[in-house]
Amino acid sequence: MAPLFNTLVILGFGLIGGSVAAACKARGVVRNIVGVARTQETLRKAFLHQLADSTTSDPTAAVKDADMVLLATPVGSIVNLAERVASHAPRGTIFSDVGSVKASVVSALEAVLPKTLPFVGAHPLAGKERAGVEAASADLFEGRTCIVTPTEHSSTEAVERVVEFWEALGSEVVLLEPQVHDVAVAAISHLPQVLASSLVQAAARTRTPSGSALAFAAGGFRDTSRVASSNPEMWRDICLYNRDALKQVIRNFTEILEQFQTALDEEDGRRLESFFQVAKEQRDLYFPS
Amino acid sequence: MAPLFNTLVILGFGLIGGSVAAACKARGVVRNIVGVARTQETLRKAFLHQLADSTTSDPTAAVKDADMVLLATPVGSIVNLAERVASHAPRGTIFSDVGSVKASVVSALEAVLPKTLPFVGAHPLAGKERAGVEAASADLFEGRTCIVTPTEHSSTEAVERVVEFWEALGSEVVLLEPQVHDVAVAAISHLPQVLASSLVQAAARTRTPSGSALAFAAGGFRDTSRVASSNPEMWRDICLYNRDALKQVIRNFTEILEQFQTALDEEDGRRLESFFQVAKEQRDLYFPS
Repeated sequence: MAPLFNTLVILGFGLIGGSVAAACKARGVVRNIVGVARTQETLRKAFLHQLADSTTSDPTAAVKDADMVLLATPVGSIVNLAERVASHAPRGTIFSDVGSVKASVVSALEAVLPKTLPFVGAHPLAGKERAGVEAASADLFEGRTCIVTPTEHSSTEAVERVVEFWEALGSEVVLLEPQVHDVAVAAISHLPQVLASSLVQAAARTRTPSGSALAFAAGGFRDTSRVASSNPEMWRDICLYNRDALKQVIRNFTEILEQFQTALDEEDGRRLESFFQVAKEQRDLYFPS
Repeated sequence: MAPLFNTLVILGFGLIGGSVAAACKARGVVRNIVGVARTQETLRKAFLHQLADSTTSDPTAAVKDADMVLLATPVGSIVNLAERVASHAPRGTIFSDVGSVKASVVSALEAVLPKTLPFVGAHPLAGKERAGVEAASADLFEGRTCIVTPTEHSSTEAVERVVEFWEALGSEVVLLEPQVHDVAVAAISHLPQVLASSLVQAAARTRTPSGSALAFAAGGFRDTSRVASSNPEMWRDICLYNRDALKQVIRNFTEILEQFQTALDEEDGRRLESFFQVAKEQRDLYFPS
């Protein structure tokens, strides 16, 4: 295919930024990639793995010939970074991000970026336990969902180009309002993270003469708790930026857990079985074994 | 090694019963295995996979030459089955079980089995999503923990032989009191199950214009929710039989989740980060990546 953009500038070269670069290279989606990161070590890795045609630690210099700027830093620094580079990018450069929280980030970005720099938010639903550019892979987005979150302020052309971009990386694009996105990912990503971290603490607190109950934990526990090994700083920021949606899904969860506890208190075998049955059917629908 | 028992009778030929048989065959732990199941189909599979030297659907006939009887049916039917076969087993036959709940099952078994049939409870911490004899494997217990739960009524010799048996199957044996076992597995196995099933229901309830939020769920959610696809009937019974311990660990969990919610309400970044950090350190200690 013909490249969609001449010069893509990726600000933040972690797992997602690095994987976007790798996928763009593998699929010929852009002509030229400029990689920007804070540390020389990351820049060296990006260059050595041939993920960028040029690298720099100076974001303002990096964007001067950009056709598209992808904000791929942690959620907590996206807005400041956009503000810093805005006056250095050519008129018409499309800005997008990969933040896992959208409503607060999108409205802040729409406020700091001038109308001459069309912005459309996106969130590729892809990840790994391992972080960093060394975990990057060209197929990270293949067959995965990427949620694109236009608003009433978005340029239709920019929306189309961001959608095309993610489809070119192999993703299936779904358009959602930023707020709807936030509640959905709170339910499928942020809530599981909070539950896994709470579960680990509850198990660690359960002591036996042979040590913590965690010492006996097997495969089921390993899977259920796996995401609890993710980066704490990243999750702190996600929770702060997606506070309202997270509170809402925790309330839903708590209601459901209370229904279970009532059935347990009443030793109601029929309701207990139906509790597990309903969940099994819902899960098997989306994750057939 | 010399066989530990002449004739092992396995009552219930599902994943665990079948895997015990496979491991005994592979490691020469017993001379002779009698497989007992309710359906002809299971018996045929056990025989075809060479997991049993003889099979029958009649448990009372099966135990007449037993040196050891392993109760490997679902928790809800262990006690009735033991009561049914007790008068047919030779004096001195060692009884054991593999139930995932111990206090209630062990005390009931001690009540129905005569002193001439020494009983020692056990629980191999091993499992798979797939159930049934067709998922059985000889290495299911290798390197895994088996908790053996003697009481003041247990014969020391029987405890030693049950410990030897599980060690011969490749497991590391830990001795715990039945009540301590129940709280520990409530924390590492039953609580994760309840959380996973509640999580799936909470996510299914979260709707978007493109369908349930579950439609966007990716790898992290798949892992966190995996056990929600397990057998609902089995989990109903486990919850009923381990009600008190489960209630206790749900209370612990709820306290921890409330601490998180307070930090979130107060937008306390330091406490949120420490919440995820503590869980990560606890988990990484037992599940190094």
